Amino acid sequence: MKDTEIHITKEVSLKNPILIEGLPGLGFVGKLAAEHMVKELKAQKFAELFSPDFPPQVIIEKDSTVRMFRNEFYYWKASGKEQNDLIFLIGDTQGLTPQSQFNICSNVLDFVENYKTKMIITLGGFGVGHLSKNPQVFGAVTNKQMIRDFKKYGVVFDNKSGQGIGAAAGLLLGLGLSRGMKGICLMGETHGSYIDPKAAKSVIEVVKQYLKLSIKLDDLDKKAQETEEIISRVEQMQKTQSMPQMPKDESSTYIR
Amino acid sequence: MKDTEIHITKEVSLKNPILIEGLPGLGFVGKLAAEHMVKELKAQKFAELFSPDFPPQVIIEKDSTVRMFRNEFYYWKASGKEQNDLIFLIGDTQGLTPQSQFNICSNVLDFVENYKTKMIITLGGFGVGHLSKNPQVFGAVTNKQMIRDFKKYGVVFDNKSGQGIGAAAGLLLGLGLSRGMKGICLMGETHGSYIDPKAAKSVIEVVKQYLKLSIKLDDLDKKAQETEEIISRVEQMQKTQSMPQMPKDESSTYIR
Amino acid sequence: MKDTEIHITKEVSLKNPILIEGLPGLGFVGKLAAEHMVKELKAQKFAELFSPDFPPQVIIEKDSTVRMFRNEFYYWKASGKEQNDLIFLIGDTQGLTPQSQFNICSNVLDFVENYKTKMIITLGGFGVGHLSKNPQVFGAVTNKQMIRDFKKYGVVFDNKSGQGIGAAAGLLLGLGLSRGMKGICLMGETHGSYIDPKAAKSVIEVVKQYLKLSIKLDDLDKKAQETEEIISRVEQMQKTQSMPQMPKDESSTYIR
Amino acid sequence: MKDTEIHITKEVSLKNPILIEGLPGLGFVGKLAAEHMVKELKAQKFAELFSPDFPPQVIIEKDSTVRMFRNEFYYWKASGKEQNDLIFLIGDTQGLTPQSQFNICSNVLDFVENYKTKMIITLGGFGVGHLSKNPQVFGAVTNKQMIRDFKKYGVVFDNKSGQGIGAAAGLLLGLGLSRGMKGICLMGETHGSYIDPKAAKSVIEVVKQYLKLSIKLDDLDKKAQETEEIISRVEQMQKTQSMPQMPKDESSTYIR
Repeated sequence: MKDTEIHITKEVSLKNPILIEGLPGLGFVGKLAAEHMVKELKAQKFAELFSPDFPPQVIIEKDSTVRMFRNEFYYWKASGKEQNDLIFLIGDTQGLTPQSQFNICSNVLDFVENYKTKMIITLGGFGVGHLSKNPQVFGAVTNKQMIRDFKKYGVVFDNKSGQGIGAAAGLLLGLGLSRGMKGICLMGETHGSYIDPKAAKSVIEVVKQYLKLSIKLDDLDKKAQETEEIISRVEQMQKTQSMPQMPKDESSTYIR
Repeated sequence: MKDTEIHITKEVSLKNPILIEGLPGLGFVGKLAAEHMVKELKAQKFAELFSPDFPPQVIIEKDSTVRMFRNEFYYWKASGKEQNDLIFLIGDTQGLTPQSQFNICSNVLDFVENYKTKMIITLGGFGVGHLSKNPQVFGAVTNKQMIRDFKKYGVVFDNKSGQGIGAAAGLLLGLGLSRGMKGICLMGETHGSYIDPKAAKSVIEVVKQYLKLSIKLDDLDKKAQETEEIISRVEQMQKTQSMPQMPKDESSTYIR
Repeated sequence: MKDTEIHITKEVSLKNPILIEGLPGLGFVGKLAAEHMVKELKAQKFAELFSPDFPPQVIIEKDSTVRMFRNEFYYWKASGKEQNDLIFLIGDTQGLTPQSQFNICSNVLDFVENYKTKMIITLGGFGVGHLSKNPQVFGAVTNKQMIRDFKKYGVVFDNKSGQGIGAAAGLLLGLGLSRGMKGICLMGETHGSYIDPKAAKSVIEVVKQYLKLSIKLDDLDKKAQETEEIISRVEQMQKTQSMPQMPKDESSTYIR
Repeated sequence: MKDTEIHITKEVSLKNPILIEGLPGLGFVGKLAAEHMVKELKAQKFAELFSPDFPPQVIIEKDSTVRMFRNEFYYWKASGKEQNDLIFLIGDTQGLTPQSQFNICSNVLDFVENYKTKMIITLGGFGVGHLSKNPQVFGAVTNKQMIRDFKKYGVVFDNKSGQGIGAAAGLLLGLGLSRGMKGICLMGETHGSYIDPKAAKSVIEVVKQYLKLSIKLDDLDKKAQETEEIISRVEQMQKTQSMPQMPKDESSTYIR
């Protein structure tokens, strides 16, 4: 594997799909929100993405089987006539290098373009450094017309804080723009140092109303707990286990 | 996007253009100077450069729309018969890796070569570690003949300090040399730790006289303030917002 | 040399070979175990692997000749009718960058696939932070059916600790999976800060029984000592000898 | 420039040339020695090597002209019938990344192979951490037969210290070996923290006798001083001048 690869595991045909991205990021808000939606909507997996810029490790599952780090694509078929089908992008990690972020996002866009995706919703956290009782949802868009549509659902468009959007949540919008895809990033207000199911809830509330989806939210705290477990496993994995003995920046600690 | 891309947004025909580069660097002297000239000369944008070695983020503009990090090309048509047309290269950032600096500069030179550019003026700061009331402008050239031309306007050619020139301000000259382009780097004396509109003014004074341009300078302090705002936004962006969770050098701080 | 290269030094024909990997890693458990087996079984070298992502150095042998850092392939022909032939992968080092790990492992799999390898056993250490009198052997597999086969020999499948497997020991399994190769990683319980021949012994015990091999173990402590010498040579090499003068992360210490 | 480039500046025809490498390294022993030989033998430049893995900067010469970082090839035609012609490889720097070391050395070998080079002598320092009144010269070879030839001139082949050889001085030998080139690295005993003309002298003494060259040595201290100046210029260059504003590892110090 010398470049990013997407393996299609199920051929599907989708109607006006919208891409919803929720990869690991600040407060794991996007990941929690997207994974909760996948679960509640019973979305089905149809493709997996692997990259040589993911951590060079395998994950050991609870049943002692191993698997590669990956991103996954799930689809959901709308029942309502006016609804869009959905593609979810979730996963364990993002690319390790700045350049790989561009590469992986370009691959994702190539892939969803095959399904004639015209809109992208990316989900993330907005770090404020303190806990919020009722986390607001901040928005940033690829064209101004979208602001009105989302203000209806309480999204705050107020960039006096001068923030930007990093990694997939940002690049998918920026790179999608030049392909004629419109997009919005919904960012749940979050502390920044904790996994934040509350912020994820706020974000889902917006998506749910905008897309007229029926999604229960009471399970989200449990979901948050599961996520915390997985993350702590991955974290430990990185600390304890057999790394190659000569990592670039620690060549002086070669052996012990 | 796997490599640097230049998107032409307007087809133009230019007469003996000179490339003037002012990307972010020491004291933001080059950036301030070139952007001020673009504004005062009402130069028009005709191309944008994107690179997978720019930061993997999007910038949120004040109107809540997002855009990619980019470099921009502006052109200015000379009115005087003896004057050269000008191409300005300005932008948000430079390549993140040493190798990408070579790649991006080579792409820039390929591009301006299409317009038969024969001369390059790069603008930057010359760090002295203290504030100067009347910042001098230091010069370095690709051939000695140019020294006389610029000494007239007070440029100091005195390399006893043994400095070099990093990034685009240096590489465009070095790489341009082997393509038969002559060039000069004009470096405004600057502290090195502050945004320095005064040094930018000194640099513009030289360019203005050499190219016989009419450029007002009184707005530059205001421009400096705007630049400071943008930079502080970008800076904050890098500190606060949703970075991917596993940056290479901080894998131990994976989650919190 | 711009990419990983495998040089075949002897043409061999193998019957249902199993790949056994033991490259440097935690406690050098895998390296010690695999090299001991190579020696005791009198396995023969048939190929060498070189990579531009190995350390940019040569090793000086005791007779004052130099050689490149390398990985080596050894083969062993089974005498028993029901036994599998074996391919051993051992070596000085692993790739220096995350991405090169994927690249090198893919090259290894391409190579052993030529010999119709259907199974992979990777050997490593499992860090516990303390010394164990009787080190356990932990296992992780690519499919659940293998668990039963290895439980027989005392391998513990108990992933409550939430570990992962880094570098070749993990990636060969993960990448092999999508090529239809089954695999297991056997990890000897080890402190993590010392070379551990005891853990290597435990790992060999399992492999030996599973593959019905006749391997003496009494030499292993001597082997451990030799390994320690080699590693300490390599370690010193990295500290004392003529590194290029401008390593990326220490550009400020350019000369002294 | 996306890859290493070698520009031939003069077509020459050489008889059984030997490559002598002296690039920057420990104590600048190799660089000092090779440059002194180039000067004393009045060797002529015939090619230059540029790489996108050299520092992304230009050097300002004393006459205020700029030039790229480079390596240079010089040739010397033997007058004696039995003597070999010589190719010298000297320069400002080596590649910044481990991988680029392999790439650049492979390019060098491709180049000298065109001239049917069959032997390589690389020059470097051997760090001992203290000053030596009469620095010994240590050797490492690609085949044992060469040991006898060089022992005659006092070269010590005694690898009990367990050292290796990094960068071009090592890789040229290792990579040359598989091309059928024989080679030796001559390492002058040096402190490791200072520029060391004495060690360079010792190294030249060996080369001189082995190749029956007439080279004066009294200028070497002066040469050392010049080298010190150049290096200190380069060093300062790296500290003071206009680096791009967002280096990878200091993104948090973005602006001031």
